[in-house]
Amino acid sequence: MIIVPEKEIAGLLTRADAFEAVEKVFASMSKGSAYNFPVIREAIGYEDALYGFKGGFDKAGMALGLKAGGYWPNNLEKHGEINHQSTVFLFDPDTGKVKAMVGGNLLTALRTAAASSVSIKHLARKDAKVMGMVGAGHQATFQLRAALEQRNFEKVIGWNYHPEMLPNIEKVASEAGVPFEAVPLEGLVEADVLISITSTFAPTIMADHIAPGTHIACMGTDTKGKQEVEASLLARATVFTDEVAQSISIGEAQHAIASGLIAQSDVHELGAVINGTHPGRTRADEITLFDGTGVGLQDLAVAASIVDLAVEKGVATIVDF
Amino acid sequence: MIIVPEKEIAGLLTRADAFEAVEKVFASMSKGSAYNFPVIREAIGYEDALYGFKGGFDKAGMALGLKAGGYWPNNLEKHGEINHQSTVFLFDPDTGKVKAMVGGNLLTALRTAAASSVSIKHLARKDAKVMGMVGAGHQATFQLRAALEQRNFEKVIGWNYHPEMLPNIEKVASEAGVPFEAVPLEGLVEADVLISITSTFAPTIMADHIAPGTHIACMGTDTKGKQEVEASLLARATVFTDEVAQSISIGEAQHAIASGLIAQSDVHELGAVINGTHPGRTRADEITLFDGTGVGLQDLAVAASIVDLAVEKGVATIVDF
Repeated sequence: MIIVPEKEIAGLLTRADAFEAVEKVFASMSKGSAYNFPVIREAIGYEDALYGFKGGFDKAGMALGLKAGGYWPNNLEKHGEINHQSTVFLFDPDTGKVKAMVGGNLLTALRTAAASSVSIKHLARKDAKVMGMVGAGHQATFQLRAALEQRNFEKVIGWNYHPEMLPNIEKVASEAGVPFEAVPLEGLVEADVLISITSTFAPTIMADHIAPGTHIACMGTDTKGKQEVEASLLARATVFTDEVAQSISIGEAQHAIASGLIAQSDVHELGAVINGTHPGRTRADEITLFDGTGVGLQDLAVAASIVDLAVEKGVATIVDF
Repeated sequence: MIIVPEKEIAGLLTRADAFEAVEKVFASMSKGSAYNFPVIREAIGYEDALYGFKGGFDKAGMALGLKAGGYWPNNLEKHGEINHQSTVFLFDPDTGKVKAMVGGNLLTALRTAAASSVSIKHLARKDAKVMGMVGAGHQATFQLRAALEQRNFEKVIGWNYHPEMLPNIEKVASEAGVPFEAVPLEGLVEADVLISITSTFAPTIMADHIAPGTHIACMGTDTKGKQEVEASLLARATVFTDEVAQSISIGEAQHAIASGLIAQSDVHELGAVINGTHPGRTRADEITLFDGTGVGLQDLAVAASIVDLAVEKGVATIVDF
C-alpha cells in the first residue's frame, strides 16, 4: 500500500503529465475501454458540506478506484484548510485490494486544467491569438497556465464578477510573458479561445459575446442548476464534452437540452476527436464548445500516473496493509 | 491519517464491540441521525469482479466515509487471497479530510454477524433453546458464534446444500459447548431461532419449515434476484430490516413486495425496536423475520470503534498525509 501525501504532489505531477493522462483517458472513455461509475454526491446536513465519490475503471490503463471528498465551505475560516478536500484511492484490478492513496487537492486542480487544455489542443483554431478568461479565482489560474501552452497567444483578456480578483490571472499571464487586459463582457468577443470557470446559477456569457471561430471551454458547471453560458450558444456551437451523460444532466448542456435547443446526439465526446472518430472543428468560423463536467477517471488517471514516480523518488510512504 | 491494517483487526475488534457498534448505528438510522448513501455496485468487466462503494454519515457517532471493495471470484485460486476484499475509509466530518483507513475483511464478517445477533437480542423469544443454521460457509461460522451469545441455546441444528461443509459450524457449536445435529430442511421446524446465510437465487426455506414463534434472520440476500426463503413466509411473519429501502429492492423482502404479498409499510426498522418506537415481538407464537441486507453505516461504525484503540495499542501506522 503506497501513500502519496498531498504536499508531495506539486513535486511529482507536471502539467505535461496531467495533460497526457487526461488526454489518454478521454480517448479510452470514447473507445469504451474506460468508464465512470454513477457519482455519489450528498449534502450531509453538517457544516453545509457536500461529500461524495467519483469512481471508475480504466481497463486500458488498469486504474480502478475513486476520488472521495467534497466541499466544506467553512474550512478556511474555521480550520485554515482549503474548502475543497479530496483523496484518491486506487485499487488493484486483479485482486480488489487497495493499492495506493494519493492526495487529491492539487491533482483535481491540475486535471481540471488539463481537461480544458486538451479541448484547446483538439478544437481551437491553430491561429488563435487572444485567450479569454471568465473567472479569476484559484482554479482560474490553473486553467489559464495550462491553456497558454496550447497556442501562441499574444494577449489574455479577462472578466470577473469581482474585478478586484483579476490580478490573480494577470499574474499568470505576465509570468508566461503575455500581456493582460481587463475587458467588459462585450469585450470577450475578441477571444479566439475562452475558458469560463465560475460557479453560477445564471448565465454570464451571452451568445453575442462569442465571435464565430471561437473555442469556448465551460469548466464551472458540475451540478443541476448551474449555468455559465446562454443556452442558445450551444445551439450555435458544435458541442463536445468529457462524458455525455454528465453533460446533459449536470453540465452546461443540461439547459440547452431541457429547452429543446439541442438533442443528446448533438453532444459529442472529446475522446472521439482525440481518437479520430469525430472530425472535431471543420471550419474556421465554427464555434466549438467543450462542456467539462469533471469525471472520476481523470482523477484516477493523474493519480495513477505519479504513484510509481513517488516511490522512485522516495516521497511515498509504503505501509504494510 | 491513521492506518489500521487487516492483520490487526482480529486483536482489536471483539464480538461485543461489533455488537454494540451495530446496535447503536441501527438505532441512529431509525432516529434519522445516521443515513446511508446510495450504493455503487459495478460488474467491472474484468476478472468477473463486482466492485463498489457503500457510504454513509452517522451524525450521532460522527462517522463519515465508505467501504470500498468487492468480490473477486478468482482471488483464492489465482492469488491465494480471499475473494471478498474491502477497505474502510473514514473522513473527518468537520473538514472533509481523510482520517483513517481500516482493513475491511474481518470487519465485514464481524459486523454481518453482529447484525443477526442484534436481531436475535431484540426479536427472538427469551426462552429460545434450539438454534438453527442454513448455510455452513466461512461467514456462517461468524453468524453462529455471535448468535450463541444471545440466548441459552441447548442445541444447534444445521442444514447445508453441501452437507460435507457442516463440520464448519459443528466446530463452532462444540467450542461453545452446545451439541450439534445435522437435519433435513423439514427438521428446521424445531428451531426457535434460525439464521440463513447462503447465496442463492431460489428459496431454500419454505414457509412450512418454520414453526410459530421462530425468529429467522435472513443474511444472505443483498442483490436483485437472490432469495433464501419462500415469499409467503414474509406474509406470515412480522418483518424487520436494517434499511427498508434496501430490504424491498435488493433484500429478502423484494420478492414478497413484488408479488404483492406484503407492502413496504409491512417492513419495519430493527432500529425502531432498539429505540422502543416499535414494540417488536408481541406474542410468543409470532414469527419475526429480520432481513439483513448490510449497510455501509455498519462498516463505518465498527471501523470507527477501533481506530483510537489501534493507536493506543500501537498497532496503527500514523502517516503524515
